[in-house]
Amino acid sequence: QTIAYAEHPYVKVTMDNINVDVVPAFKLKDPLEAETVVDRTPFHTRYVISKLNEKQKDEVRLLKKFMKTIGVYGAEIKVSGFSGYLVELLVIYYGSFKRVLEAASETWKPGVVIDVERYFRKKDLPKITRKFQNQPLIVIDPVDYRRNVAAAVSPKSMATFIAASKTYLRNPSELFFFKVEAKPTLAEVMELISSKPYDYVFVLFPIPKKPPDILWGFLRRSVKGVRSLLEKFGFNVLDYDVWCDEREYGVFVFELESEKISDFVKSEGPLVFSEPNSSRFLSKYVDSELTIAGPWIEDFKWVVIRKRKFNRASSLLKERLLEHGVSHVLQEHLRKTWFKVLLKDDLKYIVEMVGDDFLSFLRSFVRKKPEWLRI
Amino acid sequence: QTIAYAEHPYVKVTMDNINVDVVPAFKLKDPLEAETVVDRTPFHTRYVISKLNEKQKDEVRLLKKFMKTIGVYGAEIKVSGFSGYLVELLVIYYGSFKRVLEAASETWKPGVVIDVERYFRKKDLPKITRKFQNQPLIVIDPVDYRRNVAAAVSPKSMATFIAASKTYLRNPSELFFFKVEAKPTLAEVMELISSKPYDYVFVLFPIPKKPPDILWGFLRRSVKGVRSLLEKFGFNVLDYDVWCDEREYGVFVFELESEKISDFVKSEGPLVFSEPNSSRFLSKYVDSELTIAGPWIEDFKWVVIRKRKFNRASSLLKERLLEHGVSHVLQEHLRKTWFKVLLKDDLKYIVEMVGDDFLSFLRSFVRKKPEWLRI
Repeated sequence: QTIAYAEHPYVKVTMDNINVDVVPAFKLKDPLEAETVVDRTPFHTRYVISKLNEKQKDEVRLLKKFMKTIGVYGAEIKVSGFSGYLVELLVIYYGSFKRVLEAASETWKPGVVIDVERYFRKKDLPKITRKFQNQPLIVIDPVDYRRNVAAAVSPKSMATFIAASKTYLRNPSELFFFKVEAKPTLAEVMELISSKPYDYVFVLFPIPKKPPDILWGFLRRSVKGVRSLLEKFGFNVLDYDVWCDEREYGVFVFELESEKISDFVKSEGPLVFSEPNSSRFLSKYVDSELTIAGPWIEDFKWVVIRKRKFNRASSLLKERLLEHGVSHVLQEHLRKTWFKVLLKDDLKYIVEMVGDDFLSFLRSFVRKKPEWLRI
Repeated sequence: QTIAYAEHPYVKVTMDNINVDVVPAFKLKDPLEAETVVDRTPFHTRYVISKLNEKQKDEVRLLKKFMKTIGVYGAEIKVSGFSGYLVELLVIYYGSFKRVLEAASETWKPGVVIDVERYFRKKDLPKITRKFQNQPLIVIDPVDYRRNVAAAVSPKSMATFIAASKTYLRNPSELFFFKVEAKPTLAEVMELISSKPYDYVFVLFPIPKKPPDILWGFLRRSVKGVRSLLEKFGFNVLDYDVWCDEREYGVFVFELESEKISDFVKSEGPLVFSEPNSSRFLSKYVDSELTIAGPWIEDFKWVVIRKRKFNRASSLLKERLLEHGVSHVLQEHLRKTWFKVLLKDDLKYIVEMVGDDFLSFLRSFVRKKPEWLRI
């Protein structure tokens, strides 16, 4: 028995090898008075039980398994996908597993509104879309019309579900319900990586002790920030992601057109008539060792071809990672601990450190093509 | 004696080694009735003579020489700079050579309005700026208030004049009145080019017989078009220009970060919910030899890393130059004649074909820094 903490403290118990979370909540008459998500749960449970028949409960199970396989089941930040309650509502609204997939593949677009209990009229839809602006999927909660049950669904999860639905309906297959592939070996992943004509850079680091949602939140923000740092210095980032075991280590992965880029860059200066910027730019570059050609004028701006500060992504990250990009919490933590910038030849070292779950993650990252995507 | 043609036919004569153009014009009472630029000329002449004293005539000569040296004197399309009449007006308006330079370096910005005869009131300025929207310098013609005498001045010429004025005032020098450098040799330019860490591609071709303004007009449009073609296919064009001798040959010059780029590219497809685009994209890439990784989903779009069609600028230009970019007149002409795509090692060949005036042009192009730019 341990005490855990999400929105408020709760108790985790293991009974007969089953994990049970005991979560306290206020007993309310009206769900609109709910202060936390948990206070709303009994209303959700009652609503779903009252609406689903036995057959539909199987449809819910089927849809959950489908979503789990394609990687979009779960409202936690790591997945940013569909919660259990949301899956139940979709089956209630559309009627069956297949009908949900049909609706997703034929009618879903960013901003689609699904109003299970029909609280709103057609003319109010633009208002709702505006209210939930950055949420691509809007499912009005039957027990609280002010709430979007699908608020956690990211564009990627929604798009993945749409694409998988279309593929499944065209070509149904067990691929959508079972992971078929074995865990990869180090040699397999090494070979896969070597077959690609581009480069990989990894940042390995110890993670601070935080609840998963908070951890994933700042890891995601940080890896995006580091991507921007790389792009700002002229590296072409093809793809990037973050992996972590939620206990000890995290790894940022960047796929780059090239880890080494040209050692010069064309760089825009100020407008010729803008002072003191213009004079400052000229005194910096006219007789400088840094200047490869120019300065000259394009439209109304001074431009110059100058040497780069960093022409290797690894050097840039070693020197600037802590100053730029990384979120505040992580920055503090890495200053006190350590981080390593590694290349594809260091994969063996990484796997020895963090374990081979990383290999499965990396294989999917390198391939990119979802396992279910067949034509 | 020959017959030439600009806006209408005129006669070119040589007397005592001086070239004289005899240009017919209508004799009018009111310049507002002028049908061609030439009809307005007598009014311009009379206006200028009535306003300039003897000392100011020298100031005009000085300003013309200054502008000639920095390459902005002449309203023809090749230069896109300041006409003789415009120079005269500037001296009339500001008073002296030095005052013109002071005004340019302190008050000129794109859209500045100089109303020599003060036809307009302050509140009308926004209207005038709108009327001459794409013309960075607006000088109202004293003999015809509807006309911008500076219509030919390009942003580059105006900016160059502003920058040169600032440099001259800070640090006056003979550099602004005399070209000091000797013509370069082939060996010098070869060495200069080899010292740069980037690549050059040349397109050499015979030019059609056309009056200079028309010729320069479509050569400029064409070289811009070819630049876009290169960029569309992923080449990073640092700079580009066109040279021609106005008789036989033209050369497009492109300075590229690299003539050879990666043989793959990340390429965006349609939105996952958009049909039939989405299905078409997937059947093209899911099992294709062209696919290096993916397809996968970013935001709501399919993306893929695929092989490039062209990873050398020279191959792209050899195959696509005539279909894309080049203006219609030039396209027709090159189909009937020929063009060659050449690299920096072919410079000797180019100079043998077109003569060594090309070398002076190329030296300035490669250096980019104006000769007068000292700090």
